[in-house]
Amino acid sequence: MKDASLLSFVTNERVRYADVDKMGVVYNGNYLRFFEIGRTELMRHFGIPYSEVEKQGYLLPLIEAKIVWKGSAKYDDVLEITTLFNSKEINSTIRFDYEIRVDGKIIVNGYTVHSFVRADNFRAVKPPSFFLNKVEEIIKTKHI
Amino acid sequence: MKDASLLSFVTNERVRYADVDKMGVVYNGNYLRFFEIGRTELMRHFGIPYSEVEKQGYLLPLIEAKIVWKGSAKYDDVLEITTLFNSKEINSTIRFDYEIRVDGKIIVNGYTVHSFVRADNFRAVKPPSFFLNKVEEIIKTKHI
Amino acid sequence: MKDASLLSFVTNERVRYADVDKMGVVYNGNYLRFFEIGRTELMRHFGIPYSEVEKQGYLLPLIEAKIVWKGSAKYDDVLEITTLFNSKEINSTIRFDYEIRVDGKIIVNGYTVHSFVRADNFRAVKPPSFFLNKVEEIIKTKHI
Amino acid sequence: MKDASLLSFVTNERVRYADVDKMGVVYNGNYLRFFEIGRTELMRHFGIPYSEVEKQGYLLPLIEAKIVWKGSAKYDDVLEITTLFNSKEINSTIRFDYEIRVDGKIIVNGYTVHSFVRADNFRAVKPPSFFLNKVEEIIKTKHI
Repeated sequence: MKDASLLSFVTNERVRYADVDKMGVVYNGNYLRFFEIGRTELMRHFGIPYSEVEKQGYLLPLIEAKIVWKGSAKYDDVLEITTLFNSKEINSTIRFDYEIRVDGKIIVNGYTVHSFVRADNFRAVKPPSFFLNKVEEIIKTKHI
Repeated sequence: MKDASLLSFVTNERVRYADVDKMGVVYNGNYLRFFEIGRTELMRHFGIPYSEVEKQGYLLPLIEAKIVWKGSAKYDDVLEITTLFNSKEINSTIRFDYEIRVDGKIIVNGYTVHSFVRADNFRAVKPPSFFLNKVEEIIKTKHI
Repeated sequence: MKDASLLSFVTNERVRYADVDKMGVVYNGNYLRFFEIGRTELMRHFGIPYSEVEKQGYLLPLIEAKIVWKGSAKYDDVLEITTLFNSKEINSTIRFDYEIRVDGKIIVNGYTVHSFVRADNFRAVKPPSFFLNKVEEIIKTKHI
Repeated sequence: MKDASLLSFVTNERVRYADVDKMGVVYNGNYLRFFEIGRTELMRHFGIPYSEVEKQGYLLPLIEAKIVWKGSAKYDDVLEITTLFNSKEINSTIRFDYEIRVDGKIIVNGYTVHSFVRADNFRAVKPPSFFLNKVEEIIKTKHI
């Protein structure tokens, strides 16, 4: 975690009745919602809220996602969602990694890969300069 | 049901794992999804698919909804969703009524009230003439 | 709000991408999830967490719900959910009222009515004494 | 697809308003729901409905899932969900592969890996004999 290019952020989210299925644990599809919450709050924390990305005319749809279950979360559990963003991995796409813990124990990890697309035509484009500049600025600030 | 102004349609939908909560029954919020399926298929059946409403520049957001539970639906049950539309009740708003059955027994009924709004400015407007004309045509055709 | 029998609690919840539909506003069915969050946090605040209700062998399914829309909530809005519980309205059922605000303006209000049922046989029962005693204790404490 | 050990099944599902987000396309988390529909209908088609798995005292939670997006699905699109089950890949876990098409074009593919667990204690177990026998029987019947 000493890598200066690595940004991380932790956010908490409580499991609701709406989230669990008849096994009494969080339904599998809902973890992508928790991943969304994790990366949204990381981006907000570092000064690039996702709403700003949209204001600039871009969207960030998923092009790949992976989820690995090590355990399960029950109703009313508080999930600790750790999101990681490695600026070294910025290519034509960007990637976020996630670890979800309950009581300090990892129950799920995974990642999502996103492409920037123009909101007006849904065409994939390279990460725009406003985004790259902001990330560079954040990394520099961390160094000092 | 002999009222010529009354349109009705029945559609089926299977309960998925994603829909049930830890009580083993459909989570309450999901019934509004089943109401959506009911009115969408009624509109399609009578020749006014909702996608056509949007193409004409309108949206149909809910302004009121009521749900009454008489029973519950379990995983893998097939819901029989009956949707009713009474053209006499077209005012500044329109209304759909719903009955959801499992094995012939009503488990939920309710209604939704909708306003037409312009898609470009989200302003409420009266039901547009393309909609009123189409409904009139459907009612007439039923008479013959 | 001077009625001693009236309990109220405010909780906040941010609108996620998962919550909005193609109109760009919260999908109608998701408001029942926000109502759940409201009453769950009210119950927790006053010392009767819903998980305790289940531990005592009871469930609290909805038997009626109503939602009225006055406006809409957009992506990334923070909802202010006010939940009200009037202990005078405890009968064979209990009722919660809700007001959801964005930037101080009510966009949705509504209510849910619940029945206590035994978890083992799903039979409706009167509000159990552990619940009634706790509510009475809360009301008394407010008086002092 | 000539591999006798490979079972496949196609099922259709229409995209609802509840499924799309403000990009106007299906929200990413909902694809795991479509995967669920795919494998459930494959299992039902081949005579091992998931409800039967639960009746035998087992659950089939996900332990891994991957989704790759090639395109997107819009409101009211009909998804063609192809699910594949390769009986040669039965180990301590089982795996389903999925391809989702709109108008004949693949928009999403992916897989899920599941472990059998005992419903009473949530402990992972080997695929039970009732399941293995049934699969063997299906494969044999295909040969003839």
